[in-house]
Amino acid sequence: MEEIKGMKLNKNMKIRELVKDMNNIGFQATQLSRAVKVIEKMKKDKAVVFLSFTSNMVSSGLREVIAQLVKDKFVDVLITSVGSIEEDLIKTEKPFLMGSFDADDKELDRKGINRIGNIFVPDDRYELLEDKLMPFFKKIYDRQLKNKKLISPQELIFELGKGVKDKNSILYWATKNKIPVFCPGITDGALGLQIYFFKQKFKEVGIDVTADMEKLSKIVLEAEKTGAIILGGGIAKHHTIGVNIIRDGLNYAVYVSTGTEYDGSLSGARPKEAVSWSKINEEGNYVFVNGDATIIFPLVIGCFL
Amino acid sequence: MEEIKGMKLNKNMKIRELVKDMNNIGFQATQLSRAVKVIEKMKKDKAVVFLSFTSNMVSSGLREVIAQLVKDKFVDVLITSVGSIEEDLIKTEKPFLMGSFDADDKELDRKGINRIGNIFVPDDRYELLEDKLMPFFKKIYDRQLKNKKLISPQELIFELGKGVKDKNSILYWATKNKIPVFCPGITDGALGLQIYFFKQKFKEVGIDVTADMEKLSKIVLEAEKTGAIILGGGIAKHHTIGVNIIRDGLNYAVYVSTGTEYDGSLSGARPKEAVSWSKINEEGNYVFVNGDATIIFPLVIGCFL
Amino acid sequence: MEEIKGMKLNKNMKIRELVKDMNNIGFQATQLSRAVKVIEKMKKDKAVVFLSFTSNMVSSGLREVIAQLVKDKFVDVLITSVGSIEEDLIKTEKPFLMGSFDADDKELDRKGINRIGNIFVPDDRYELLEDKLMPFFKKIYDRQLKNKKLISPQELIFELGKGVKDKNSILYWATKNKIPVFCPGITDGALGLQIYFFKQKFKEVGIDVTADMEKLSKIVLEAEKTGAIILGGGIAKHHTIGVNIIRDGLNYAVYVSTGTEYDGSLSGARPKEAVSWSKINEEGNYVFVNGDATIIFPLVIGCFL
Amino acid sequence: MEEIKGMKLNKNMKIRELVKDMNNIGFQATQLSRAVKVIEKMKKDKAVVFLSFTSNMVSSGLREVIAQLVKDKFVDVLITSVGSIEEDLIKTEKPFLMGSFDADDKELDRKGINRIGNIFVPDDRYELLEDKLMPFFKKIYDRQLKNKKLISPQELIFELGKGVKDKNSILYWATKNKIPVFCPGITDGALGLQIYFFKQKFKEVGIDVTADMEKLSKIVLEAEKTGAIILGGGIAKHHTIGVNIIRDGLNYAVYVSTGTEYDGSLSGARPKEAVSWSKINEEGNYVFVNGDATIIFPLVIGCFL
Repeated sequence: MEEIKGMKLNKNMKIRELVKDMNNIGFQATQLSRAVKVIEKMKKDKAVVFLSFTSNMVSSGLREVIAQLVKDKFVDVLITSVGSIEEDLIKTEKPFLMGSFDADDKELDRKGINRIGNIFVPDDRYELLEDKLMPFFKKIYDRQLKNKKLISPQELIFELGKGVKDKNSILYWATKNKIPVFCPGITDGALGLQIYFFKQKFKEVGIDVTADMEKLSKIVLEAEKTGAIILGGGIAKHHTIGVNIIRDGLNYAVYVSTGTEYDGSLSGARPKEAVSWSKINEEGNYVFVNGDATIIFPLVIGCFL
Repeated sequence: MEEIKGMKLNKNMKIRELVKDMNNIGFQATQLSRAVKVIEKMKKDKAVVFLSFTSNMVSSGLREVIAQLVKDKFVDVLITSVGSIEEDLIKTEKPFLMGSFDADDKELDRKGINRIGNIFVPDDRYELLEDKLMPFFKKIYDRQLKNKKLISPQELIFELGKGVKDKNSILYWATKNKIPVFCPGITDGALGLQIYFFKQKFKEVGIDVTADMEKLSKIVLEAEKTGAIILGGGIAKHHTIGVNIIRDGLNYAVYVSTGTEYDGSLSGARPKEAVSWSKINEEGNYVFVNGDATIIFPLVIGCFL
Repeated sequence: MEEIKGMKLNKNMKIRELVKDMNNIGFQATQLSRAVKVIEKMKKDKAVVFLSFTSNMVSSGLREVIAQLVKDKFVDVLITSVGSIEEDLIKTEKPFLMGSFDADDKELDRKGINRIGNIFVPDDRYELLEDKLMPFFKKIYDRQLKNKKLISPQELIFELGKGVKDKNSILYWATKNKIPVFCPGITDGALGLQIYFFKQKFKEVGIDVTADMEKLSKIVLEAEKTGAIILGGGIAKHHTIGVNIIRDGLNYAVYVSTGTEYDGSLSGARPKEAVSWSKINEEGNYVFVNGDATIIFPLVIGCFL
Repeated sequence: MEEIKGMKLNKNMKIRELVKDMNNIGFQATQLSRAVKVIEKMKKDKAVVFLSFTSNMVSSGLREVIAQLVKDKFVDVLITSVGSIEEDLIKTEKPFLMGSFDADDKELDRKGINRIGNIFVPDDRYELLEDKLMPFFKKIYDRQLKNKKLISPQELIFELGKGVKDKNSILYWATKNKIPVFCPGITDGALGLQIYFFKQKFKEVGIDVTADMEKLSKIVLEAEKTGAIILGGGIAKHHTIGVNIIRDGLNYAVYVSTGTEYDGSLSGARPKEAVSWSKINEEGNYVFVNGDATIIFPLVIGCFL
């Protein structure tokens, strides 16, 4: 067995060296270091890599980190919630702002500022989004919905990406590099409300979520190997590991989450639980890193870029 | 200010008395006791009551508690994830089993047992589900999809409920009492996979998620007051508080969750954060109870039934 | 294997019935119900029962619940931190007050109010404590320290209990019923500061913490069986399970804690980890209930009183 | 207000650069980056720096990181629990080993391996400790306890450090650099049990915990400014912030913890709560970083070494 021992720190140490030494620290430092090893194997094995993330990742500066991964084709499939799509779009126009966890929420409400943890989002950001979505729906209507009536979430997001010029955007690179973005809960956000408003005029248009199951299943079934990097929980996590049941589970999995196991929630479920579900291949290689992805993910990904 | 003081316990004490005395204990006991008061106001004020829950609630015995609330029309709208629908259906045939958090997951996988925390689900439960869903899709196809092609998640769930005979089922009572069940992530589960298999034959059918936005928005807009009881996080929680933006937010809200605030996740977000978003009415009455709903919810709801 | 199923709730249900039905709910409800069974065995087996608790339990209304247990001789040994002793004494004179988690701490500081979660403690409570401790030290000095110089924490607390008249006090009943209270970190609080002030005049007096090891070890070694109910973590938890190493570990253990395992902290350590340490007897009977003791402990103990 | 934005990662990036860029990421990455700024101010202001840590930090490879800080006199006072002293001593002879969170604890018990999270400690490590402590007590007895009878925890630890030759040891550098180590719960561990065995022969010796209050209070009162870096919770955290009440609270504070606020525990208490207690100076500069110190502390401290 390997020994527990500390690293000799210095401020000129590189990320890669630090993370390597973390392997022998114990507790979550070891888990983090193991996450790098699992991803190394995933990549070496040419697995199709799923990146799953909740929308708070996009609220944070991880948006640009994810965009970099999509630009570099480090990942092959994105699965996320609709908030991610919305916030990536908003940020193509205006940034979110640094706030405080301890802000007075009533005062913020009066000032027209919305809070996500210690991140502030002024109301005008959502007005910007509405200003973008309405003409987009009209355009997509004229171009295809008029006849075809239906679009799938993945197609919709692909079309949205066409209109983006910001090179820090996840959607920009996803569309450019033809990396599909799946969003099984597409109406759960401002986009859902805007579609509702749009449908009041154009009743017959719709979003068919079942359409994406074929495309996604095909990717899963045709892959020699699959791996997943899963940031946070929710529908994005569940969808990623759920769809991999139709093959014999993920071959590789890295979970980064703050969730707990004790309440049986999917968000806190460990990879070892997924083994019982054949959602992760029993022979697979997996690790759970407990903590906030804003710290953990840059350290892990910093070893590869 | 009220004083902190302990109750005089005895084993013949009734739930209602215990919860009342918890008000003065401090920490989460006080929060729990306040949750009862917020729900009392919600009901007294004749608010339209949303019940939001993640699927692990249905994995647990809270399924029957929720069914009782739907039977009694204590709640008016359900919002949940698709796992809840699936597991409620499975349980109409066969129960889940008591297991252990510390089980050996590889051994479970070999035995064909899937684990959700300390709950075990043998593989045959999912075979049962498949056996139910395929004929159901065929029937619904023959009845309406053949012509109309599209169905909304809420309509689909309503139809599913028609086939249920189990009086412990949430769907049974929801359909009987015409309490709508919204499920914005309808394909994220076994149901999504089954639809994918079904579509291989019947390509033109689909589920239009935008169709439910109109129905849900109408409920929200027409309500004099709205209140929500939210168990866990995820898409169910987000959808519940998100759709209430189109009025001036929820008037009343009770959150029960194990999530943390520090990572900016929606699942851990407190009601006070929702105030900044106008997702909860500033004048509103809300409380966050931190802990596992399997303990907290029976105590809270036990005061009303 | 037992089945997962929900209870039929009604507000006249008794605590004991509710907790019994929780056994089949799953997740932490099941753990809570199992805790009752472990304590039943502990009592039936006439084990020496250790009750370990952190001082926030005494800040809350659990103080009176613990006092009731000590009055009824339901427990045989108390192990806690010094804050518990101090707050139990303060509450013999004046209560703590119901506050809010979201209070403005700067404003509270200006008002002379100290906050413990959602519990408020006005400054005068600590002045009361000082007014009690100084004459007490003088009296104990005159009575025995003048000659003997040294006292052990357990002896000191026993003497403190003699001066208490409040029948809601833990110390009152501990002294009356000769139930020893161990406090291995006796100087870590206001009491430590007061002793420092006292020692400026009476330099030679001291508190010998090693003196209690003999008494505590004797209890552990002479017991046929030992059991522990452990609320929270910290030094009280560690001391309770640590001293039981000198026999072959605790025979029974119930942990109630919000701590996490992932950081290797003792506070979050599960009983199964203690098995590897022989701190809990391998044949032992143990359970971990994850959650806030202010909710869980009244439910568990309510089944016995 | 500053903008939220992601860094451009590359594997040759230095720790210092990464942490600087984390400032704009949001959530805990921002908190971590702010922790560096608070420590910069602490050092620039020549504050007396307290380092508080629980013993699991010493179980992990943070032991060597802390030793480096003590060697460099980056910190002025250490406050910890006795497990830290014991494990630092054990590691002067034999390392701890890398294990797994999911190990079978019964099997480990049979193999004579004790588990701390994912760290394994074979039984012989504790035999080594006993072999060290008994002759040490005898020597310290002959040298001073024979006459003086009493020793304080801080003096005892200082003497222990004299016997250490390992340059990776915290005690080695603490004794060499005369950096006092306070341990208010000195008997809570193997050391306490060994003293109990020793006292069976040498009844009159003892450890007077009150003796350290004077030395510690003097440090606090004579400091122009005080700052604290607090890893984890427990008695070490409480003692550090508690003793600073006698001046107007800490001027600077960095907390790193996985604890939660919702249960009123000291371990999870935020610095803003300490403001209400005047335990942290209201004008002070403080930050709470939520997460496992094995990841966070190397990043923070790596910016200074």
